Amino acid sequence: VLESWSFLDTVESNFRPLVVIELAKGTKEETIEWFTKRIVDKKANGGAQLLIKPLVMENGVENIYLVGASHLRLLLGAETVGLVKECTDNSMRTFTYSSRKTFKDFADDNHNFLTMAECQYIIKHELENLRAKNEKMIPGYPQAKLYPGKSIVRRLLTSGILVQIFPLHDREELKKLRHSWYGRVKVGYQPLDDIRCYFGETIALYFGFLEYFTFALIPMAVIGIPYYVFAWEDYDKYVMFATFNLLWSTVILEVWKRICAILTYRWGTLLMKRQFEEPRPGFHGVLGINPVTGREEPVYSSLKRQLRIYLVSLPFVCLCLYFSLYVMMIYFDLEQWALDYHKENESNFSSLMLYVPSIIYAVVIEVMNRIYRYAAEFLTSWENHRLESSYQNHLILKVLVFNFLNCFASLFYIAFVLFDMKLLRQSLATLLITSQILNQFAESLLPYWFQRRYNRRMKKRTCSQKTDRDLSIAEQVNMEKEMGTYLGTFDDYLELFLQFGYVSLFSCVYPLAAVFAVLNNITEIYSDALKMCRVYKRPFAEPTANIGVWQLAFETMSVISVVTNCILIGMSPQVDALFPDSKMDLVLTVALVEHLLLAIKFIMAFVIPDKPRDIQMKLAKLEFESLEALKQQVRAFQMQL
Amino acid sequence: VLESWSFLDTVESNFRPLVVIELAKGTKEETIEWFTKRIVDKKANGGAQLLIKPLVMENGVENIYLVGASHLRLLLGAETVGLVKECTDNSMRTFTYSSRKTFKDFADDNHNFLTMAECQYIIKHELENLRAKNEKMIPGYPQAKLYPGKSIVRRLLTSGILVQIFPLHDREELKKLRHSWYGRVKVGYQPLDDIRCYFGETIALYFGFLEYFTFALIPMAVIGIPYYVFAWEDYDKYVMFATFNLLWSTVILEVWKRICAILTYRWGTLLMKRQFEEPRPGFHGVLGINPVTGREEPVYSSLKRQLRIYLVSLPFVCLCLYFSLYVMMIYFDLEQWALDYHKENESNFSSLMLYVPSIIYAVVIEVMNRIYRYAAEFLTSWENHRLESSYQNHLILKVLVFNFLNCFASLFYIAFVLFDMKLLRQSLATLLITSQILNQFAESLLPYWFQRRYNRRMKKRTCSQKTDRDLSIAEQVNMEKEMGTYLGTFDDYLELFLQFGYVSLFSCVYPLAAVFAVLNNITEIYSDALKMCRVYKRPFAEPTANIGVWQLAFETMSVISVVTNCILIGMSPQVDALFPDSKMDLVLTVALVEHLLLAIKFIMAFVIPDKPRDIQMKLAKLEFESLEALKQQVRAFQMQL
Repeated sequence: VLESWSFLDTVESNFRPLVVIELAKGTKEETIEWFTKRIVDKKANGGAQLLIKPLVMENGVENIYLVGASHLRLLLGAETVGLVKECTDNSMRTFTYSSRKTFKDFADDNHNFLTMAECQYIIKHELENLRAKNEKMIPGYPQAKLYPGKSIVRRLLTSGILVQIFPLHDREELKKLRHSWYGRVKVGYQPLDDIRCYFGETIALYFGFLEYFTFALIPMAVIGIPYYVFAWEDYDKYVMFATFNLLWSTVILEVWKRICAILTYRWGTLLMKRQFEEPRPGFHGVLGINPVTGREEPVYSSLKRQLRIYLVSLPFVCLCLYFSLYVMMIYFDLEQWALDYHKENESNFSSLMLYVPSIIYAVVIEVMNRIYRYAAEFLTSWENHRLESSYQNHLILKVLVFNFLNCFASLFYIAFVLFDMKLLRQSLATLLITSQILNQFAESLLPYWFQRRYNRRMKKRTCSQKTDRDLSIAEQVNMEKEMGTYLGTFDDYLELFLQFGYVSLFSCVYPLAAVFAVLNNITEIYSDALKMCRVYKRPFAEPTANIGVWQLAFETMSVISVVTNCILIGMSPQVDALFPDSKMDLVLTVALVEHLLLAIKFIMAFVIPDKPRDIQMKLAKLEFESLEALKQQVRAFQMQL
Repeated sequence: VLESWSFLDTVESNFRPLVVIELAKGTKEETIEWFTKRIVDKKANGGAQLLIKPLVMENGVENIYLVGASHLRLLLGAETVGLVKECTDNSMRTFTYSSRKTFKDFADDNHNFLTMAECQYIIKHELENLRAKNEKMIPGYPQAKLYPGKSIVRRLLTSGILVQIFPLHDREELKKLRHSWYGRVKVGYQPLDDIRCYFGETIALYFGFLEYFTFALIPMAVIGIPYYVFAWEDYDKYVMFATFNLLWSTVILEVWKRICAILTYRWGTLLMKRQFEEPRPGFHGVLGINPVTGREEPVYSSLKRQLRIYLVSLPFVCLCLYFSLYVMMIYFDLEQWALDYHKENESNFSSLMLYVPSIIYAVVIEVMNRIYRYAAEFLTSWENHRLESSYQNHLILKVLVFNFLNCFASLFYIAFVLFDMKLLRQSLATLLITSQILNQFAESLLPYWFQRRYNRRMKKRTCSQKTDRDLSIAEQVNMEKEMGTYLGTFDDYLELFLQFGYVSLFSCVYPLAAVFAVLNNITEIYSDALKMCRVYKRPFAEPTANIGVWQLAFETMSVISVVTNCILIGMSPQVDALFPDSKMDLVLTVALVEHLLLAIKFIMAFVIPDKPRDIQMKLAKLEFESLEALKQQVRAFQMQL
């Protein structure tokens, strides 16, 4: 099919496949020819100037293409996407081709200067920025309309001609990474820099946060154990524990920002300039002029979107919240029934029955969360947000509110309506442990098991003797294209967020929660690592400088937990006993303490700098340099006069 | 003295004096010669390339110099400081000399393209950036050390050779401004754009805030009047008023951000890039290398500064706070004594005596605030901050905390310890009104009176018949150099901040406070305008994009006022009567309402965007353009390959 190669092809001796493009079976010849021509065409002609090769499968069907690029093309692409790399003087700078010699490890023949993940990110960026010129439609598909500036790949995706684009795994590297990550049982840090090199910054930052969070929970867990073991119930000890927890959670969230700055500075993303955001693939509307860019693109009225949000989405979310509360009330009826049953006919069976409602409820919560997730995705997509980021924010807000209520409403009810601390402790334990087990199972182990079975069957079908390493590129592509797609870190963060809620909201009632959280997170690191390396297709690297809206979500949770813990301590019989004469004094004292704690929290968040001093200095130095460079330009111009 | 004029001088036909430099009397000839040479020298030789003329006074003493600049020099300077001006297509863009033709009202012979305040700001910037080359000291003054890169003007100032630098008033413009600002009694907005043209953005923004704040208080005042007139004491009405106040104060602070964005966009400062901050004039230390710039400059260990802050300043502030509380207790003793006296011998005199303690206390508070202010300035200066901004932040924090406690401690004591709502209302009224009268008197009217007297005496001494307009430049300079120096908007904002406290902290007890605040602010606008135009030297314009730390201060105050108002309402007998059975329920309800209000406040602050949609769009457009320009560069480079 492909005769017209890019001129760069002659320079490049060996073609290294980086990204796989899978077209729909039976795609018309003219479409393929047009698309591949656009990919290999010169930049000057509006092409992407990449290399592409068809992959001939055994059955002769030719719908899979491998995309690569010459070394020079990748370096120029690195400049376009604004990659930040380390210089020979150990400072981080935005890579430009003209200053390439000043970068560490750069050599014209060193093809490892850019990591494979970076190369794949560049290729993805170039493919997505392949834009229609004068084409009114995709050749061969009159219903797939195009207009000048429309991303070709996105239109191909939405019209179903392009099935998927995914980056290839590097079997060698992956094996090394697997070994250092979870290959041996060891105590130590994860190889975050290696993870970042292989999977990109977003995923590495998630694992960094997971690890940091686990370490940060250890003090809570250690302090919590004796409370459980010795069944301490003293007033002052409980207050101590809760106060420590509350201040500690503020400290760890502030310190995380600093660690995050250190990590992302080292990875270069802290300095990366934000790119202009194009409309998200699903965005649709009447063709108009974007007032910002002045370009033709679909336009959708902001008022219409607001109406959809406030008149449809908001009521729907409220309805779901109401439904969740309704289910909760059914749970309490069930609980009561089980208790009555246990009282009437006491037996081993009946005492086992006591736990059944909680377990059922925990399962129902998980199921409801998952169903609601689909509904939220559908609604947010229907709200037709122009930007991926605003889509994500609306989705996260919807999901967070529902999951928060769904998971914690019963606990709030038990604590502040029933005042039953024993039941609270028991429910908390059941919910926490059940949801952890369910999550680990549904998220990693089940998909892994399916993947293994599928792989084994695939191998048997081809040539059963080969190990992973000997697989030909065709076989590798064939295997990887059937793997599941990793949908991003959303679910992983959400899980941590809810766990943080279980640990902090009622920490003074159930100090053991932190212990379970730590244990869960240790296995979580391994199961998530397994998931990334074994179950899913390799995801495209996504540069990021922080964990975004999750920082805010965790901070909000820690504020709410101050309120709940103060109330819980105020309600405990030990504290009650301290104010025998006046309940008023008790409540006032609790309110005072709560306000003090909140004030301390805010002051601490304000006083602790978000970036360590040396990172601040390095950033200031870069800013100073760019200002100086600008001044030099002005001065040079003035001297000419 | 001056023979060597800049080459630009030949181009410029008329010298327009913009800035006055006053040297100490008896400054050595060689120093003057060196300094003026550096000012007129070419940029290429490290000079400022400005114009300077000595001003010969009647008594023959020659220590005052007038600084000006050619039109071309000012345009180039506008590019250096990064001024943002309006283009012919109504968008705001950073001015560059090469793109000058695209700007609105630009013409090579239009010398009003830059306002006089902008020209003066440029000259100030150029003078301050006049840096030592190889000079080891100021010629003639071996004790005034210099090192490469040290600002000459700052060293001249700190060593006392340079008495002051100030911009000249423009008598014509000032007269017009005075007329449109406060010349006639009228209902309407202030001429903010004119104020900004004459005094610069910082001062215009203060007046903008003052005006906005006054308008924003009117609804509170209007709703508050009937409460006073009809002596409404119903529970629900009070709650309504307080709730309205609390939400209203959040709304006005959020809306101010939007208005501020509109104003500063129009003025161009919203888009101005932050310049690199040089050390403040008073900063001293051992000569070392600045790690950011790599230049020689004084270096002072951050640890030493921290020690000074935490071991000296912090204890001192605490001591002052304690002292303030001590004075407060004396006030209460006095109050008690006056009450006893009134009871024993009831007469007109004794009932008048009842008000005496409050008035004395109000005066003492003002005096203490002013004394503490000096102490805080001394301490903060001794802490030796490198940057003016960090100096300002530490000073503002110190002053705010003390003033807050000093002004409101007695009210808190009366409200939450004595539970005396009548006394609270009375004290609040006395404090508010006394402090307002004192402030207006001490801030504007007294200096104005002194200034008038001085002016009259001066005029008599010279030639008594002349009006302001006919004054020669020498006489004008002579008069203006003796005027007081405006020390910035700090005190003005502080006054508004405390007023906001009086209005919002106890709004549900004394609804009339807003009325007094509105009345005060209307006269405040006039007296402040008078102060700016008549009493003080013209200040240098200072570009700014927002009101800085004051926004945070006002927001904090509005959070505190939620707490105080909820407690006050909870304590009122009307609310008490609603919960006859259980005080507990009352306290819990109040706490619940408080938390709800706080939550609503935070959500509102989060939901209301900080910038109006059209400003957001304009900013996005500019950002997009600069990204596109960068891409074009990269693309042009790639095409060459």
